[in-house]
Amino acid sequence: MSKPGKAVKAHTLKPRLPRGLVDRGPAEIAATHRMLEAIRESFELYGFEAVETPFIEYTEALGKFLPDLDRPNEGVFSFQDEDEAWLSLRYDLTAPLARYVAEHFDALPKPYRSYRAGYVFRNEKPGPGRFRQFMQFDADIVGAGSVAADAEICMMAADTLERVGIARGDYVVKVNNRKVLDGAMEAIGLGGDAEAGRRLTVLRAIDKLDRLGADGVRLLLGAGRRDESGDFTRGAGLPDEAVERILRYVSFQAAPTDGGDRLAFWESFFGGWGDVVGGSETGRQGIAELHAIMRLCEAAGYGHDRIRADPSVVRGLEYYTGPVYEAELTFPVTNEEGQTVRFGSVAGGGRYDGLVGRFRAEPVPATGFSVGVSRLFSALQLVSSPIVTGSAARGPVVVLVLDREEIASYQALVAALRQAGIRAEPYLGASGMKAQMKYADRRGAPCVVIQGSDERASGTVQIKDLIEGARAADAIASNAEWKATRPAQFSVPVAEMVARVREVLARHDGA
Amino acid sequence: MSKPGKAVKAHTLKPRLPRGLVDRGPAEIAATHRMLEAIRESFELYGFEAVETPFIEYTEALGKFLPDLDRPNEGVFSFQDEDEAWLSLRYDLTAPLARYVAEHFDALPKPYRSYRAGYVFRNEKPGPGRFRQFMQFDADIVGAGSVAADAEICMMAADTLERVGIARGDYVVKVNNRKVLDGAMEAIGLGGDAEAGRRLTVLRAIDKLDRLGADGVRLLLGAGRRDESGDFTRGAGLPDEAVERILRYVSFQAAPTDGGDRLAFWESFFGGWGDVVGGSETGRQGIAELHAIMRLCEAAGYGHDRIRADPSVVRGLEYYTGPVYEAELTFPVTNEEGQTVRFGSVAGGGRYDGLVGRFRAEPVPATGFSVGVSRLFSALQLVSSPIVTGSAARGPVVVLVLDREEIASYQALVAALRQAGIRAEPYLGASGMKAQMKYADRRGAPCVVIQGSDERASGTVQIKDLIEGARAADAIASNAEWKATRPAQFSVPVAEMVARVREVLARHDGA
Repeated sequence: MSKPGKAVKAHTLKPRLPRGLVDRGPAEIAATHRMLEAIRESFELYGFEAVETPFIEYTEALGKFLPDLDRPNEGVFSFQDEDEAWLSLRYDLTAPLARYVAEHFDALPKPYRSYRAGYVFRNEKPGPGRFRQFMQFDADIVGAGSVAADAEICMMAADTLERVGIARGDYVVKVNNRKVLDGAMEAIGLGGDAEAGRRLTVLRAIDKLDRLGADGVRLLLGAGRRDESGDFTRGAGLPDEAVERILRYVSFQAAPTDGGDRLAFWESFFGGWGDVVGGSETGRQGIAELHAIMRLCEAAGYGHDRIRADPSVVRGLEYYTGPVYEAELTFPVTNEEGQTVRFGSVAGGGRYDGLVGRFRAEPVPATGFSVGVSRLFSALQLVSSPIVTGSAARGPVVVLVLDREEIASYQALVAALRQAGIRAEPYLGASGMKAQMKYADRRGAPCVVIQGSDERASGTVQIKDLIEGARAADAIASNAEWKATRPAQFSVPVAEMVARVREVLARHDGA
Repeated sequence: MSKPGKAVKAHTLKPRLPRGLVDRGPAEIAATHRMLEAIRESFELYGFEAVETPFIEYTEALGKFLPDLDRPNEGVFSFQDEDEAWLSLRYDLTAPLARYVAEHFDALPKPYRSYRAGYVFRNEKPGPGRFRQFMQFDADIVGAGSVAADAEICMMAADTLERVGIARGDYVVKVNNRKVLDGAMEAIGLGGDAEAGRRLTVLRAIDKLDRLGADGVRLLLGAGRRDESGDFTRGAGLPDEAVERILRYVSFQAAPTDGGDRLAFWESFFGGWGDVVGGSETGRQGIAELHAIMRLCEAAGYGHDRIRADPSVVRGLEYYTGPVYEAELTFPVTNEEGQTVRFGSVAGGGRYDGLVGRFRAEPVPATGFSVGVSRLFSALQLVSSPIVTGSAARGPVVVLVLDREEIASYQALVAALRQAGIRAEPYLGASGMKAQMKYADRRGAPCVVIQGSDERASGTVQIKDLIEGARAADAIASNAEWKATRPAQFSVPVAEMVARVREVLARHDGA
């Protein structure tokens, strides 16, 4: 047993976490659990089934598809196995799924619809709001090349957001197509493997449209841009004509107006895109796919207030090959600089027809999306979704321990409560009655059970209803009055303890 | 879109996992989830609350307490941060809890009862049945120095096993005390820091009693032992008298007989132990603590058929300072060599009064235990616990897609089902009707919805009950008869589809 008051040690470790990692307490765990269950129900309704892969994979099996890699270890936590093979912590849930499907290809039903939730890890430069461990909740359809699969994913994204408590009108699922982007690149002479680097620079520039506006993106597509701090970012060096063509493309925005003939709307909307991709076959195919997705969504009743084409959606990960999606929350929040901005993206994904094919002789089409669990959780707190604001779990009944020699008899009281299915515990610390009552308060105990020597002699216990007691305390003026009346505290024979505690719990049910 | 039939690639990656890591499918995930929920309910009944810590910690915060370290990286996956600090994947859930409690000490109620489930990682030599990622489910009481806390943990271990489906009599919670072991060492002259290495050798020898018997342990305590393969393990080199004293100690076994005066039984049982620890004060204190735990358990109705003192329990982790426990399943299984053995340990733990104190000026008493989730899961499968054998989830209703041009109208049928809360999906692959029916079977679909051009023209769908159909198929002799009767398939107007599918689902509820 420990002896408090022992000599102070000369040297102690500092208890702390590396940056970008956090602990979670019971309220957040319970609320997150409810949110994950709602997402799971939504995915199951769409016919998806669960799968789980480990946190560690061969580095080469995961591949390197992360955006914005400017550090030597490229965003991934890696270490060597005893046979010198490189292993990595997964950085998303898509690359491991591709490995899983390839490994179990013949045993899986195809198309294979699966979902999985889990932590992923990024070896990021630590900074405020950048986490190195965060949770994703993914759903994917592997083995379906049809754009109907992409449309399903977009509809499911919309349904899932509504199910967790985001109101219609507070979100939009934006859809674009990498093929259109590729076509636009081809049309300005950036096709082929040799231009892969410049294409990436162009994509990153488009990705910043929200933040920098058209003028900022214009600089990044051309010679480059100097930001407020004086840092210079080199641009893609495109000629003016090409810059304007790209800007024309990203400016096609489908205004979220309702009514009218929606199919006709999309017809005219995409009519303007052909010019951007010029003669590129890939580009034209991309526009046709995007148009087909919009038609399917409209037919299923998902109008462009919920799902709409948006050419500014790029998605950072390199493995996308077709439609890409992003679910954005549109309600306003105040950012770190005090500006009012949209909440922004909480989920995204796209088609990655090449990823499973890395492991197999034949290509395997696949599409899916990923919910950023922590981002969505923050959003639900902002809109006070009942899913995350639900009442905290009630604490246990605390049996005070007034006489430590009699611990066995206190434990017997606790055992009786537990056998009746009532959450209960004896106080096991070394402090006196006052501290024990304070402990019961901090634990959120609905009531305490008290047995001093008098009660023990008479075979009774005192039950003190802490919830009722707190209410009564507010109404009582003086300490003397309190002591005289002792509201919400009563004496019962031990044999009746369980029944009377049950009554107290029932009285406060839902409180 | 992908083009199946493309030229075979010259080189492909092999899809595989590093050894000691596994994937899990939907049935195992659902069954494990049910088991974890049952454990959580048990822990909550005892007043414990949830906490979650990240997978990565500073290496020095975790410390190095793993048993049997004979590899250079000492059992832990580690990597360097960008500021060169060493980080590690957690190897258990106790060391991170100690860091958490130390970091949030003033904000936590004390005693602090917490539980947490999660994966831990060991950089083990891979081998059959050795996992490098496995789940633990822990419960700990921090801030309670009293043996009543240890007794609570042992009782909760027993209750938890019964709650998940292990019958009384099929398990036993064995308790020992490191202080008794330390006392026994002192008594044979192995006290003090200089003898730490030899003490470890002695502990490991005792730990092998189950496997090697008294004769094997005798050799390991003395000069050493040569096993069947010819490998020689050096012994602790104790003199004969010391060897016999240790063997006398580990041979004190409390036979699990019932009836009689149990408190008197323990009185006489521990009476024989004093000789082993000789004059060691620590040893005598350890015996007194163990005796107190047994009295508390007996008083709460947990007899020595469920919880009993056992001197052969050692526990591998180095941080234990007092009582140690091990929950063992006693029913027979056949091991790899075809021998009948007990199933063995599924949970264990003990008191670790020094672990939180590494971070603080004052010592902080703590005790807890850890359930090996995978081990327990295997055990539940062996005893066919209803918790893991529960029926698999039913698959979705599959809407066949016979005419891919009409995908929007199939998707509308699916949307109607989903809006009614019925799990449903359109078939999104490229295959024909026969393959689609096979797909529905593999997914465990209760029924399929079929709409060809005739049905579309007449505003109807065919509903085919696959469960009833399979039953009927067993009863029908010829293919011709089948085609004539088409059992379990019927035509309904589209407007009635949802109601009729619901009838099919209700008919097979619980099937």
